[in-house]
Amino acid sequence: MLNYVHSIPTKLFFGKGQISHLSDALNTFGKKVLLTYGGGSIKKSGLYDEVKKILDEGGFAVTELSGIEPNPRIESVEKGVALCKENQIDVILAVGGGSTIDCSKAIAAGVYYEGDDLWQMVREADHIRKALPLVDILTLSATGSEFDPSAVISNLKTNEKLGGTFTYPAFSICDPTYTFTVSAYQTAAGSADIMSHIFEGYFSRTPDSDLSDGIAETILKSVIKNLPAALNNPDDYEARANLMANSSVACSGIPEYGKASTGWPCHTMEHELSAYYDITHGVGLAILTPRWMRFILKKDPSCSWRFVRFAKNVWGLQGGDDAALAEAGIAALEAFFRSAGLPGNLTELGITDEYFRAMAEHANVDNFLADAFVPLTNDDIVEIYKACL
Amino acid sequence: MLNYVHSIPTKLFFGKGQISHLSDALNTFGKKVLLTYGGGSIKKSGLYDEVKKILDEGGFAVTELSGIEPNPRIESVEKGVALCKENQIDVILAVGGGSTIDCSKAIAAGVYYEGDDLWQMVREADHIRKALPLVDILTLSATGSEFDPSAVISNLKTNEKLGGTFTYPAFSICDPTYTFTVSAYQTAAGSADIMSHIFEGYFSRTPDSDLSDGIAETILKSVIKNLPAALNNPDDYEARANLMANSSVACSGIPEYGKASTGWPCHTMEHELSAYYDITHGVGLAILTPRWMRFILKKDPSCSWRFVRFAKNVWGLQGGDDAALAEAGIAALEAFFRSAGLPGNLTELGITDEYFRAMAEHANVDNFLADAFVPLTNDDIVEIYKACL
Repeated sequence: MLNYVHSIPTKLFFGKGQISHLSDALNTFGKKVLLTYGGGSIKKSGLYDEVKKILDEGGFAVTELSGIEPNPRIESVEKGVALCKENQIDVILAVGGGSTIDCSKAIAAGVYYEGDDLWQMVREADHIRKALPLVDILTLSATGSEFDPSAVISNLKTNEKLGGTFTYPAFSICDPTYTFTVSAYQTAAGSADIMSHIFEGYFSRTPDSDLSDGIAETILKSVIKNLPAALNNPDDYEARANLMANSSVACSGIPEYGKASTGWPCHTMEHELSAYYDITHGVGLAILTPRWMRFILKKDPSCSWRFVRFAKNVWGLQGGDDAALAEAGIAALEAFFRSAGLPGNLTELGITDEYFRAMAEHANVDNFLADAFVPLTNDDIVEIYKACL
Repeated sequence: MLNYVHSIPTKLFFGKGQISHLSDALNTFGKKVLLTYGGGSIKKSGLYDEVKKILDEGGFAVTELSGIEPNPRIESVEKGVALCKENQIDVILAVGGGSTIDCSKAIAAGVYYEGDDLWQMVREADHIRKALPLVDILTLSATGSEFDPSAVISNLKTNEKLGGTFTYPAFSICDPTYTFTVSAYQTAAGSADIMSHIFEGYFSRTPDSDLSDGIAETILKSVIKNLPAALNNPDDYEARANLMANSSVACSGIPEYGKASTGWPCHTMEHELSAYYDITHGVGLAILTPRWMRFILKKDPSCSWRFVRFAKNVWGLQGGDDAALAEAGIAALEAFFRSAGLPGNLTELGITDEYFRAMAEHANVDNFLADAFVPLTNDDIVEIYKACL
């Protein structure tokens, strides 16, 4: 086991009706609230009205920033920072999924950023030390943004999508009933994102972290069990609750306790897909991940022990030689994503090989992926992208 | 899944050499330090000298409280509170296992207690709202006190041992190498304590927490794998590290996410054994737990589904009917504790049935155990104690 630090200052209220804590949570910081949300799904679901009622009754002064994009853009961050300064905001209340929360984290930090160029802040996010307090109400089980300090912001002008460490939410309200109205497509994509966070630590050369590997496998198995149940019955509370709990624990650091932190190819490669084509992150991950797995297994068969463990412990497969078992585990993952209704390749999304070379260069800037579980070159990355067509 | 709240303000530094963070951690709060420890094992191991050197070099003013008992007593709490007041202590540094940390939590809270009787504070611990900051250096993988707000304090005058919620450590330094010198007996007893924390949530009637049940089973399996390795080679870093990481995650609340919080018979019943006979907590648990399991399985066979899961998922057992499988899982646990060198019954410890009735009445005060996984009466508790002779 390698050394680790655990420090999560977020207070997370999980379950039905936990919105009852909203007013107290906001009052910890003040009365001037910036309410951030996305494209209006919270208006359709009724959550917007519920939140507004609590804010009105609590005597909060509310400024709104709506229309935050699924891959949140730097322009939204700029708008939010301007609103915070103009209205001397005390606390940001983000109501939505990872995109809205991520954008709000960048706004919270941006208020204290001393430079003029907020995109430069995003580039240097790991230097951020101060931010406005952030409270969130989660409406999508996916990114884990409710329980970590990370955010990913896009710049369409430069075709860049960059992740960094901004700030932890002070309070996260995670009520699984708010995900009942999430579409099947977004539910499945969110689950692919949860699984992908686990793969980041699971596919590591550190062999002795029984605790973290077991927790990683638990989360994968729980998603594999509960996603179909949620798709089958969108109002299945237990299925939605297990997915939501998995979302935050997956990003708690615990599934990676003691494991080497390595460049994670699929997230990085997917950020390029989203930056160029604005696709849903989890969809890109579901397409890329099995191809990446097959590629590295072929490139370096000495990593097959990890895939054999994945096949046995996550999918319950057995029999056959190691090579067959490793491939069977990958095929099971691929079939799982397909059965959840996710697209099987990039061609279905209208994506061609036009930018693959440029995307590979971006994804592998500073030879970032030379440090991956199996090191990847730019040529390797192009080949993986091509396998996704 | 039932509702839960996750909120752990402790910053935990895990791994070799993490004592490098000690000076900065203490400086967060001030220069006047109360250094607390137990019977001198940290002097033998050299850790005391290492800590003192860091405190000297950092210019800290150090007051010492040594001799904290394995089942820490109210008199030690009283001494510590007096020392803190007398020396205007800014921060407590506990170096030791759960007993030293528990006692230090009670001291930290006691400094702000307005009454005269600190035992009364222990009785009402759940009302505590303010405490001195606490930093700890963990030397035993067992109680999880490094990652939770709980403490258990004993009063030999009244034969009481009471647990409550005092304060979270601000920083915990968890270096597995500090456990290399822990005796085989204490290593095994500590592991029994870790497992017991898991059983508290695992034996619950909430059936749908895939995440927490999987994490609970992971921790149990990890202890089952790593305890024999640590006993076989006390300097086995990976084994010691996995036990130490398990200790804190077991008390993080995550293995009970979404599960009903019920009265936990074994901890309560063991507190009585320790209160009357001052035995090691984990030893009492190792003796009591399998007997409690057999008793409730007989009393209410409808709970056998849980024992079947335990046998299959934790011990990898299969075959036979449910009753046989359930018993095989219990027998495996019992054999595991024996093979780790723990006593097999209370008679070996010189305990007779003399106080069993009084202990049962204490353990079940306010019919506390009517709310257990399988409800227990005082007669039931006496019967379980007797089965331990």
